[in-house]
Amino acid sequence: MYRLNLINSITGYKSANMIGTKSNSGDENLAIFSSITHLGSNPALLHFTLRPNTVPRDTYKNIKENNVFTVNHVSLAQIEQAHHTSAKYEEEISEFDQTLLKPEYKVNWYAPFVEGSPIALGCRYLNEYDIKENGCVLIIAAIEHIFVEKKLLQKDGWVKLESGKVVAINGLDGYALPELQKRLEYARPNQIKKKR
Amino acid sequence: MYRLNLINSITGYKSANMIGTKSNSGDENLAIFSSITHLGSNPALLHFTLRPNTVPRDTYKNIKENNVFTVNHVSLAQIEQAHHTSAKYEEEISEFDQTLLKPEYKVNWYAPFVEGSPIALGCRYLNEYDIKENGCVLIIAAIEHIFVEKKLLQKDGWVKLESGKVVAINGLDGYALPELQKRLEYARPNQIKKKR
Repeated sequence: MYRLNLINSITGYKSANMIGTKSNSGDENLAIFSSITHLGSNPALLHFTLRPNTVPRDTYKNIKENNVFTVNHVSLAQIEQAHHTSAKYEEEISEFDQTLLKPEYKVNWYAPFVEGSPIALGCRYLNEYDIKENGCVLIIAAIEHIFVEKKLLQKDGWVKLESGKVVAINGLDGYALPELQKRLEYARPNQIKKKR
Repeated sequence: MYRLNLINSITGYKSANMIGTKSNSGDENLAIFSSITHLGSNPALLHFTLRPNTVPRDTYKNIKENNVFTVNHVSLAQIEQAHHTSAKYEEEISEFDQTLLKPEYKVNWYAPFVEGSPIALGCRYLNEYDIKENGCVLIIAAIEHIFVEKKLLQKDGWVKLESGKVVAINGLDGYALPELQKRLEYARPNQIKKKR
């Protein structure tokens, strides 16, 4: 446990997202992830990792069945409910039934979104890479739909996460609320000189 | 630019780390990254992505030469300096000379650490995966050394990032300071019932 806590927190803050999926037989699933990362903007791609498939992983199974999933940001008010989606439930049990989180269906997307998330993405599975160093699987997906509360979206496309009280994860179980300090200009080779 | 800002901020907060490397000919390099993510704790692994190698990437070149690099967390006081390492300098120019950040050598590690970073890791390149969807490269590395300020490290191995004023990145250029809200218990299947 010491090692788990240490290594999970030592790389810094991570995004807090709930991935929503639905099996072809109609079972909904919702699970919290902290490894979702932007991969590229054109095409719009993200990636995340799944632990070794030694035990059933509903999220993975559902995505493989129909290729779609949703990414829903965790906001301050959702912390406890979002964290609870990490509990191990049988496949037929929906985390939507075991928490106060509610599924929301829109744009004909097969996978459920989470009602009230300040940002939600409709994503499509593209590929996976087996990470042979530890048996994890890296999933690559296209971002096909973006839902973002109006007050977060700035004129230049930048999304001010703070305005949605979006949280970040510290380790396995620490939830932190970031406060914006500043946005900086595009960095160009400069002026700053210093003697070594 | 709108697309870049949007897609870079839409996946949530990201870690703020500076990667330190040194070429075999002795040129130091320091560059900020926001894609470093924990991959597994046993063995202790992390990964990060590099954009397509269509232009010279000093970080990648140096890592390929001698396999080692450092990961140094950005703390509140280092934001401007850390951000400036994203400016494009020629290979012979060290970001340590162009910013107020100072290299620090320890444990005989060939790559430079950043003096004053609250957390620093000595990492060894293990493998890379070409992400064919957009030409990025995913680097897998082993965490071999961990330096963490004493006040951050808790009894159970959890590292309280807040105590080091470690920042998170929002998009390409937004720096935020997270405040811990709570640590939650390990989630077990539960009690919470609700009617749909």
